[in-house]
Amino acid sequence: MLEPRALLPFDRAVLRMRPIRPHGMRGGRPGGSGPGGRRDRPEQAPRDPAPGERWIYGRHAVTAALANPRRRWRRLVALAGQQEEAAALLAGARASRRGEGEPLRLTDRLEFEALLPEGAVHQGWALQVEPLANLDLDDVLTAEPPDGRRIVVVLDQVSDPHNVGAVLRSAAAFGALAVVVAAHGAPSATGALAKAASGALDLVPLVRAVNLARALDRLKQDGFWTCGLDERAPETLAALDLGERTALVLGSEGGGLRRLVRERCDHLARLPTRPPLASLNVSTAAAIALYELRRGEPAE
Amino acid sequence: MLEPRALLPFDRAVLRMRPIRPHGMRGGRPGGSGPGGRRDRPEQAPRDPAPGERWIYGRHAVTAALANPRRRWRRLVALAGQQEEAAALLAGARASRRGEGEPLRLTDRLEFEALLPEGAVHQGWALQVEPLANLDLDDVLTAEPPDGRRIVVVLDQVSDPHNVGAVLRSAAAFGALAVVVAAHGAPSATGALAKAASGALDLVPLVRAVNLARALDRLKQDGFWTCGLDERAPETLAALDLGERTALVLGSEGGGLRRLVRERCDHLARLPTRPPLASLNVSTAAAIALYELRRGEPAE
Repeated sequence: MLEPRALLPFDRAVLRMRPIRPHGMRGGRPGGSGPGGRRDRPEQAPRDPAPGERWIYGRHAVTAALANPRRRWRRLVALAGQQEEAAALLAGARASRRGEGEPLRLTDRLEFEALLPEGAVHQGWALQVEPLANLDLDDVLTAEPPDGRRIVVVLDQVSDPHNVGAVLRSAAAFGALAVVVAAHGAPSATGALAKAASGALDLVPLVRAVNLARALDRLKQDGFWTCGLDERAPETLAALDLGERTALVLGSEGGGLRRLVRERCDHLARLPTRPPLASLNVSTAAAIALYELRRGEPAE
Repeated sequence: MLEPRALLPFDRAVLRMRPIRPHGMRGGRPGGSGPGGRRDRPEQAPRDPAPGERWIYGRHAVTAALANPRRRWRRLVALAGQQEEAAALLAGARASRRGEGEPLRLTDRLEFEALLPEGAVHQGWALQVEPLANLDLDDVLTAEPPDGRRIVVVLDQVSDPHNVGAVLRSAAAFGALAVVVAAHGAPSATGALAKAASGALDLVPLVRAVNLARALDRLKQDGFWTCGLDERAPETLAALDLGERTALVLGSEGGGLRRLVRERCDHLARLPTRPPLASLNVSTAAAIALYELRRGEPAE
């Protein structure tokens, strides 16, 4: 079900493929061991649902999946009346098709909704897909990043698919290299996550690390400063100088960062919220932190 | 069903009641007419569900509702095993009870979930409530604000209750005075909105304005600069000097700001996102904008 390794590494911005070259330590963490560091593999994905059950829905999510050359798909289902738009979408698709039968099915609402989980916000578009090839951190770190600061978001025990999807979306909007989650306990990259990501699932690598503490070590070896968000930290994120490579580490809303993860953080920082309701949703906190890290940079 | 006017204005921070005095023009918009300006009333709420159907669920939302002296409630339902915590919560409640029968019911999961919409994330807590008294903008503007910049968030055609709830939560975290929505089309202040607000529904006034353009005029008369978020704007929010009173105006994700609302904006500003996925969820954009406005201020 996974794509052959030969197709990796993933090109994060589907619309802009870049050549791969080993990266230097430009602006990186002092003492980082660079690309020769220990490699954190193999990463394994948790069991996904069977291919027949794997749907991506919503206009943006479907469009991005069809535009992603690393994606394989089986069929597109759209509500009747969207024939022309569906045909145009398929004509421009860069994703490769796998499977037999008609690639496009137009249907009524009743049949359409029977395909998807109850309450799915589908906007009349659903794409039956295969999962993206699982990436490990090395694939991300050896790919050529965009200009400016290199940012990786690490989520510790964030299990809500809406939150992970929303973090992916903000990661795309602020040009982060990847979102890293623990393989165990992280939601599968299907409907609700893909919908909340609004297309970003097919743009930003979602790395499933077997061991999050080791993933942070790997980032540190590559010159990243690791910064955990913690509302009790004495300093604000804006007050820290985090250099050109930054891993933002966020914990679950209830539990915060686990000890082994927190100990890997070079810094802890808070966002300047106020009592009596000072806590933010984890995807909101991630978005604000990404904004803060990009704030001083010229826009691309 | 509404509380008598005598109980207004609402005290925004339930945990910190302040005396009310007319405010001056401290740092406000030049030319604003101050408290003598035209009053934008009456505001009327859209029809809410019948009282018997009105539930707030989730630990934070229930706790905040019971702590809010402006809230009326009918009964608390909790999953069996949470008896002590429920009793402590009721003993400290500042909300006033209305209705008969037992105030607390402990129940099993099946009976509990039958009370709520399917898929509600309730964490074992549900409170049957009456709606908060409807506030108008004058109630908010004549109440004594906290120190620092005065910020009001205005949402144009944002109809998803999760988004409105999430904006309320960020408004609480960054000390905004109120969130203003159009009375027509805005979601009712019940379950999903209250859950996403995570208690903020009982802390930050949700003002339902009959006419959003008039509400913006009212804010301008009170010395507020109005700033619409628009990803096509030439300037970033961080580059603008918006003074001590700012109304942040956000449109729906699909439609943006309507013309009559956009025309009331003194400024348009963007957040520094990047293609190919430059758009942010509206609640994420609101959170980042609130953060930006508070960023230079000393924390409370």
